[in-house]
Amino acid sequence: MLVALAGGVGAARFLSGLVRVVPEDVLTVIVNTADDETFWGLKVSPDLDTITYTLAGCVHPEQGWGRVDETFTVIDGLARFGCDAWFRLGDHDLSTHLFRTSRLAEGATLAEVTEEITRAWGLQPKLLPMSNDRVATRVTIRDDDGSLTNLAMQDWFVKERSRGPVTAVDFDGAMEASPAPGVLEAIATADTVIVCPSNPVISIGPILAIPGIREALKERRDRVVGISPIIAGAPVKGPADKLMAPLGIEVTCVGVARAYADFCGTLVIDSLDARHTTAIEELGVHAVVTNTLMTDARVSAALAQCTLEAVA
Amino acid sequence: MLVALAGGVGAARFLSGLVRVVPEDVLTVIVNTADDETFWGLKVSPDLDTITYTLAGCVHPEQGWGRVDETFTVIDGLARFGCDAWFRLGDHDLSTHLFRTSRLAEGATLAEVTEEITRAWGLQPKLLPMSNDRVATRVTIRDDDGSLTNLAMQDWFVKERSRGPVTAVDFDGAMEASPAPGVLEAIATADTVIVCPSNPVISIGPILAIPGIREALKERRDRVVGISPIIAGAPVKGPADKLMAPLGIEVTCVGVARAYADFCGTLVIDSLDARHTTAIEELGVHAVVTNTLMTDARVSAALAQCTLEAVA
Repeated sequence: MLVALAGGVGAARFLSGLVRVVPEDVLTVIVNTADDETFWGLKVSPDLDTITYTLAGCVHPEQGWGRVDETFTVIDGLARFGCDAWFRLGDHDLSTHLFRTSRLAEGATLAEVTEEITRAWGLQPKLLPMSNDRVATRVTIRDDDGSLTNLAMQDWFVKERSRGPVTAVDFDGAMEASPAPGVLEAIATADTVIVCPSNPVISIGPILAIPGIREALKERRDRVVGISPIIAGAPVKGPADKLMAPLGIEVTCVGVARAYADFCGTLVIDSLDARHTTAIEELGVHAVVTNTLMTDARVSAALAQCTLEAVA
Repeated sequence: MLVALAGGVGAARFLSGLVRVVPEDVLTVIVNTADDETFWGLKVSPDLDTITYTLAGCVHPEQGWGRVDETFTVIDGLARFGCDAWFRLGDHDLSTHLFRTSRLAEGATLAEVTEEITRAWGLQPKLLPMSNDRVATRVTIRDDDGSLTNLAMQDWFVKERSRGPVTAVDFDGAMEASPAPGVLEAIATADTVIVCPSNPVISIGPILAIPGIREALKERRDRVVGISPIIAGAPVKGPADKLMAPLGIEVTCVGVARAYADFCGTLVIDSLDARHTTAIEELGVHAVVTNTLMTDARVSAALAQCTLEAVA
């Protein structure tokens, strides 16, 4: 059995390679849900949906999230009512949110709805939300006048275009949340646990913040392998750099190794970062060097193969 | 000032004629909301929307409800999840429902949201929901084996295609509901109150069932004029016949006159029903004969003019 901790686009691209090199049904993906937000009453789970659409082959190939051939009739119509529709939910995507929202309203858990959605898409891997409880990433930024503003994740990332400087990141509700059923069991029994190349602060961070998960990973440290989302001192995509530095995490693969060292025995880093191998090994983390820039599915598959072999 | 009690398509077509013969801003429309339903968490108000779209000039011209040039991407997408999407909400229409649902969730009343929606469309007439409280029409039908089934209005009308025989109609919540702010005042101060050519049982009936409204109309009986939705013993559109007969209302303009006689001093009937004039007058209701089949906007306007003159 294989477990992956995952955020959004980077993780989804990695997983699309992984399912080319392992039987799909051995895979359980534990997905960040602290980016989840409610828009116009609809429950949106960006990371769950990005991974679902990617594995289902219906993701927008260039942007890496949302649906291919998407239309925006509904959201454009909201403009008439003066709504600031900065979160551009597509019409195809809205079907998912309507279904999720109505099932949650009926009393289903997020894990149950996620199972129903992935089954509807015919996915073999099991997708688990990190928790059925609400956890919400909040980002605090300092404005030019020195005042602090606390924003919900999507407000900061999409509406405010990741502006900074960031002074703090919090996972509201995390301490009261429980891992979704099966999460701890999957980690405890997995042959290998992969930490996908996702934002360490706001994608992997919330998963680790739920009581019990980091401890479970520590127990399996020699079977846990991460892939650095930082290549040559910069994230491939997304705002990881703006979030890592203020939290004291160096924006390099060494910074990632240090942040994960207590539960992650092996880290896969990019060829461009080969010179950091010694620094990572000095943290007690085994470093494996390969090409990690997932320019296409073939590279993703090779990266997945290398990641599995790193702890074989 | 002019007040109209209204249901869906028939009322909307009449009102589109009325605004051609009176200044739009003198008109207040009190709209049935007992057909309202929640689909996938979205608050749908069919009669309010039909009238809004008709007066805004964006209604589907043939079917008389829904938006012209509508698409169904979202609802079709729900089929993937095994949802029985028998209520075909269009993508354009969904913008309205998303806005209404989110505003109601924020604590706005239905009257407030309705005002916002009609203002967004630039409508001059004031649309008032009959009540801000939930009132839900329920239809009881007798099955072939003699058993009774109680259905929500849209379940019966759309999903079950108005099948019968109907044994009872109830307006759940009506007795506990209050007229929306302004409803009683509008009736009390109107020069003329028009009962639109709508289903007497399930469109006008719920409005009359809210405590205070029928009494307010009785006070203005000589200023109240109705238009019979029944022509030559049959409804122009919709299931009025299936509902009137079981409730003891004869499916003729005489039956309508008798049902309205206590609060409606004048009834406009179709030329095909001229022979019923005496029977209606014997009920103490003044009968006015004209062409009431609204085949186009010109006919609707002429009918509106005749209706106004009937109580001038």
